Amino acid sequence: MISTQVRLARRPHGEPDDATFSFVEEQLPDPADGQLLLRVVYLSLDPYMRGRMSAAESYAEPVEVGDVLVGGTVCEVVESRHPSYDAGDFVLSYSGWQSYALSDGRGLRKLDPTSAPISTALGVLGMPGFTAYAGLLEIGRPQPGETVVVAAATGPVGSAVGQIARIKGGRAVGIAGGPAKCAALIDEFGFDAAVDHRSPDFAASLAAAVPDGIDVYFENVGGHVAREVFRLLNLYARVPVCGLVADYNATDAPQGVDRLPGFMRRVLSKSLTVRGFIQSEFTKVHGRDFVRDMSAWVADGSVRYREDIVVGLEQAPEAFRGMLAGRNFGKVLVQVSDDPTR
Amino acid sequence: MISTQVRLARRPHGEPDDATFSFVEEQLPDPADGQLLLRVVYLSLDPYMRGRMSAAESYAEPVEVGDVLVGGTVCEVVESRHPSYDAGDFVLSYSGWQSYALSDGRGLRKLDPTSAPISTALGVLGMPGFTAYAGLLEIGRPQPGETVVVAAATGPVGSAVGQIARIKGGRAVGIAGGPAKCAALIDEFGFDAAVDHRSPDFAASLAAAVPDGIDVYFENVGGHVAREVFRLLNLYARVPVCGLVADYNATDAPQGVDRLPGFMRRVLSKSLTVRGFIQSEFTKVHGRDFVRDMSAWVADGSVRYREDIVVGLEQAPEAFRGMLAGRNFGKVLVQVSDDPTR
Repeated sequence: MISTQVRLARRPHGEPDDATFSFVEEQLPDPADGQLLLRVVYLSLDPYMRGRMSAAESYAEPVEVGDVLVGGTVCEVVESRHPSYDAGDFVLSYSGWQSYALSDGRGLRKLDPTSAPISTALGVLGMPGFTAYAGLLEIGRPQPGETVVVAAATGPVGSAVGQIARIKGGRAVGIAGGPAKCAALIDEFGFDAAVDHRSPDFAASLAAAVPDGIDVYFENVGGHVAREVFRLLNLYARVPVCGLVADYNATDAPQGVDRLPGFMRRVLSKSLTVRGFIQSEFTKVHGRDFVRDMSAWVADGSVRYREDIVVGLEQAPEAFRGMLAGRNFGKVLVQVSDDPTR
Repeated sequence: MISTQVRLARRPHGEPDDATFSFVEEQLPDPADGQLLLRVVYLSLDPYMRGRMSAAESYAEPVEVGDVLVGGTVCEVVESRHPSYDAGDFVLSYSGWQSYALSDGRGLRKLDPTSAPISTALGVLGMPGFTAYAGLLEIGRPQPGETVVVAAATGPVGSAVGQIARIKGGRAVGIAGGPAKCAALIDEFGFDAAVDHRSPDFAASLAAAVPDGIDVYFENVGGHVAREVFRLLNLYARVPVCGLVADYNATDAPQGVDRLPGFMRRVLSKSLTVRGFIQSEFTKVHGRDFVRDMSAWVADGSVRYREDIVVGLEQAPEAFRGMLAGRNFGKVLVQVSDDPTR
């Protein structure tokens, strides 16, 4: 079988341009005993991948130049010489940016297409949803009546954060770019308030949207949004930090005022808790509860989700750039091949 | 009775100069029924007082211009018309920068001069000791074998942090200014390593002193010390933040590189916990354990302390400036009048 692969051609400086990626046709061997051949149906695009393209220190090993780019995928089993899987099964895997992959079964999870659309295993019922669930409940700990703010709020993490906050009795305020996304926050995801960070009066609008201040800020963007949010944090506010997408393409430390001393003074004067995390840290403690709770919430409509699907692996680089710049509207998936369940 | 008072004459810009303070002789009325007249024996000087001199937002209300400066004190009861106290009793009070004070008994705590020197109620057995104890155990949570780093390490908070860390099985690394203080860290306080932040090879010395990285950084100084420490924090490191004395006299946000984005990237990539706190937050949970543990540790010599006593209230402004600049060597006390227990 020939697999179309997207490999890291060279490490990007700033936004990943076309020279970052190389498309290669690779002849895969036939599956050996114990192996499976997978057809990639959906490839998940997530902000963390930008870090894996760089050699700089991060929470995970970088992808080597010349290697296939990593990523979560939903696949159909084409051929199985593995006792646990049959051809036609759908699985969650980490097969990366390619159209076919061999697997020895490690790290696979079988999906039931009758219980939820298979694409949700990469979004609301997968890593992004768990990031929202674990970060909010373990670190954010919203109490009834408290105000929870999240940015990139129509994205897969942000939309789940706001909706879970409301389920827990909190007041959810979402920040997003542009009027269409802000309208969706209210109409589609049920946030209590929405603020457009592209508006010239963003700071004033944000302050007006949180009359009682902010108790939890779920940090996934950084940049100018975080700067305004931090001014409004209440005493004992909690800040789970799962991403800083606004800075991922930054090439140099920005010049100007050093804002770190002022930030630390605020940490001190407001007794803030700022906690970085990767969702996998909490799998053991919260993984089972997440599957139970989130499946139920999605099934009964109390958590909704939105997908932004681009068709064709060749679209992946541009879709990835668009996601880092906030041009997506919902969870970004690359449909690499037909989804026979839709 | 005439009380010599030190009042806030005007808010300081940068280091508090002599024009910050005015010395006033105030005639106190005789104690009314239910009141006590207190003679201040020791006045505690603490970094947080710099914040109270400013109108800028902090964790406590600022001192008003014209008011007596606030501060913890150990006093002898001169005259009592309060049923719970007799003349000759020693009390911990919050009488501020003055030589005599009236009290209605609220907030007083009687001291037993036979169990510990009365001055320790302002240091190792008082607020600074509790800051170390609660911040380290509640937020830092050092595990056996972990490396705990603290700066201003010969000061009342820092020296307690290091010694408690060792009692809990941790490895204590202290940062202090100059060879004399570094020697005291090893010889007097039993730290495992000491690093001089005034040395030109501070960064390299610090790295060499923490071969396994840093698991807990007890932040009480900020500035260039914090910058080097943060580079060495381990995955899941904890940073209790109780003070930032290096920045307290800063008049403007510093220009140059904005270090906040890099700091947040580190919070994310290392899953750090950064938590500001004021010790009073933990009084209910840890207050009784502190009194029990710390009294025992001081009595059996496993926690030692050092006092830097200046004599005469007129020395308080210069001693306060010296403390902010790190010229003190141990807990700074102003001996306002004779200590009859010594």
